[in-house]
Amino acid sequence: KETCAQQSPGVTEFVGTAMGDTIGLVIANVDPMLTESMNLGKYRSIGIIGGRVGAGPQIMAVDDAVKATNTEVISVELPRDTKGGAGHGSLIYIGASDVSDARRAVEISLASLDKYFGDVYGNDAGHLEFQYTARASYCLEKTFGTPLGKAFGMVCAGPAAIATVLADVAVKSANVEVVGYSSPSQGTSNSNEVILTMTGDSGAVRQAVRAAREVGIKLLGTLGDEPKSSTQPYI
Amino acid sequence: KETCAQQSPGVTEFVGTAMGDTIGLVIANVDPMLTESMNLGKYRSIGIIGGRVGAGPQIMAVDDAVKATNTEVISVELPRDTKGGAGHGSLIYIGASDVSDARRAVEISLASLDKYFGDVYGNDAGHLEFQYTARASYCLEKTFGTPLGKAFGMVCAGPAAIATVLADVAVKSANVEVVGYSSPSQGTSNSNEVILTMTGDSGAVRQAVRAAREVGIKLLGTLGDEPKSSTQPYI
Amino acid sequence: KETCAQQSPGVTEFVGTAMGDTIGLVIANVDPMLTESMNLGKYRSIGIIGGRVGAGPQIMAVDDAVKATNTEVISVELPRDTKGGAGHGSLIYIGASDVSDARRAVEISLASLDKYFGDVYGNDAGHLEFQYTARASYCLEKTFGTPLGKAFGMVCAGPAAIATVLADVAVKSANVEVVGYSSPSQGTSNSNEVILTMTGDSGAVRQAVRAAREVGIKLLGTLGDEPKSSTQPYI
Repeated sequence: KETCAQQSPGVTEFVGTAMGDTIGLVIANVDPMLTESMNLGKYRSIGIIGGRVGAGPQIMAVDDAVKATNTEVISVELPRDTKGGAGHGSLIYIGASDVSDARRAVEISLASLDKYFGDVYGNDAGHLEFQYTARASYCLEKTFGTPLGKAFGMVCAGPAAIATVLADVAVKSANVEVVGYSSPSQGTSNSNEVILTMTGDSGAVRQAVRAAREVGIKLLGTLGDEPKSSTQPYI
Repeated sequence: KETCAQQSPGVTEFVGTAMGDTIGLVIANVDPMLTESMNLGKYRSIGIIGGRVGAGPQIMAVDDAVKATNTEVISVELPRDTKGGAGHGSLIYIGASDVSDARRAVEISLASLDKYFGDVYGNDAGHLEFQYTARASYCLEKTFGTPLGKAFGMVCAGPAAIATVLADVAVKSANVEVVGYSSPSQGTSNSNEVILTMTGDSGAVRQAVRAAREVGIKLLGTLGDEPKSSTQPYI
Repeated sequence: KETCAQQSPGVTEFVGTAMGDTIGLVIANVDPMLTESMNLGKYRSIGIIGGRVGAGPQIMAVDDAVKATNTEVISVELPRDTKGGAGHGSLIYIGASDVSDARRAVEISLASLDKYFGDVYGNDAGHLEFQYTARASYCLEKTFGTPLGKAFGMVCAGPAAIATVLADVAVKSANVEVVGYSSPSQGTSNSNEVILTMTGDSGAVRQAVRAAREVGIKLLGTLGDEPKSSTQPYI
């Protein structure tokens, strides 16, 4: 019920849609001919979250969803997309023993996407993305290798040059630990982004993300209009 | 003569253009300094088909062309493109002993592109692509590893999440054999697509493609307007 | 002072912006937590040049800048970008012992970008790019492996099919040596381009580039409007 009330297309697998051209789907019992190609492991019931715009918001949303349901993240894939933008789209498979659990996880994910687009800012020249949680769960662990149950922060921007500075600003502004640093040719799908991920004390991680956000809005603004939040900032 | 009558640019190598920002070209005698880098093998005369939008239609069209001419497919490359869309563009080299054969193959390819864009559907959120032939030839074999002379079917969509469901719908709806399953991080150029390829009895393959098409149009429609065929459906 | 007088965003690291959604930045002392991930080697002071549109112009501009300053090119990364176009964006790190040198190199790079966009031509269907210098310096050597101090020429177009012909035209029109040949699946970030790089006698290299440019404008023109220079042709 958290998901948007949408036109039902008359397809069993459909759950709902959300921001970022994101669609949520379930398959109750994936055909055995596909389970190996899809790397589903033991699962036959899956939930699917995928969008054209944004990987971070969907990853954060699924992280919440697996925390709240009896499900597991099977895989997170990051196409080069954002509809001509500088970043990624997403394709996330969630496994469950029972399809109702998979559906519930997909519903929760769709319902929290608006929140996690809150610190995605854009203008004609590019985008900024910031994410933060006090307790990372399985989707963040799987995608970024960040420690489970600890604070997690992400700083990202495209063009990548801007994010290089934001990464430096973030780590200088608080006592955080670097989890990962990705760039166009290393750790991204050739997106025009640098992505810094951090862990540490939750207050420090949040402070680092906020410091980078402040500088990011100024820097991206030099290439175009003032960058605007896609919804409402949450960090 | 099947190719569009177009402005002749006064360039010997020019053959014609077609849908998908596709251009057809020939080189009568590729300079020896380039043949190795271009992996041309024994060929010096080549035909070239390449477009910004679409790999499937061009691959199907070249498949027809090599069936009908004394030519061979040298290589099929799939850039990440579609002009901001979720899919691929294409670059296909066709080899011939005689440049007139290469030119003929390019003409045939350009002439059938409209047909093979017939089951490409799009709206603002993404696209659907379906292809089918009762007898796969050398281009399909080279690109997808599908068995020569047997029926071939392709189901593809972006965002990839939709195509995951379509792949499952396809294999459940008829007795087909899976040839390949590609996803953003495996078998594509980081496109936001899942691509299922199938073989089997021609009736079964066609039925599987049609079943996926019906569901695909409904699912992509939940993210935007009703998806429209680029030309006229042919399957 | 060669850089555009721009709104100062109040960020120490900001140097300026230029064509191609390009931003120039410096970091006086990169945080030690990042230097390894960023592969900075011995450098702590870096200049950063990065844009959404264009890799060639930025690479040429930085080549000039390192020639003129006490700096070194650390890395050149080529995201798949151009804002929905067929080509690359760029992320270039410049190392210096002194941040004032890094800043000077960034300023020089930004100031010459207009020039190097001069032989970038575009229309709705794609783009053409040509670059030439009589004496390649360290950025061109690092990026393309072209010999230092010798003439360098580049011929590039998207869709890639067009550039295949341009590469052949170039090498046939003058006595040049091929440095590299890249295509969507080899040497690019899956861009829809073929990129030929050449060296040799400066007159020959320039003649080869010009011959390809003449044909390129005609061929890209068959897919849309007459391709226009982004600024003023310089070759």
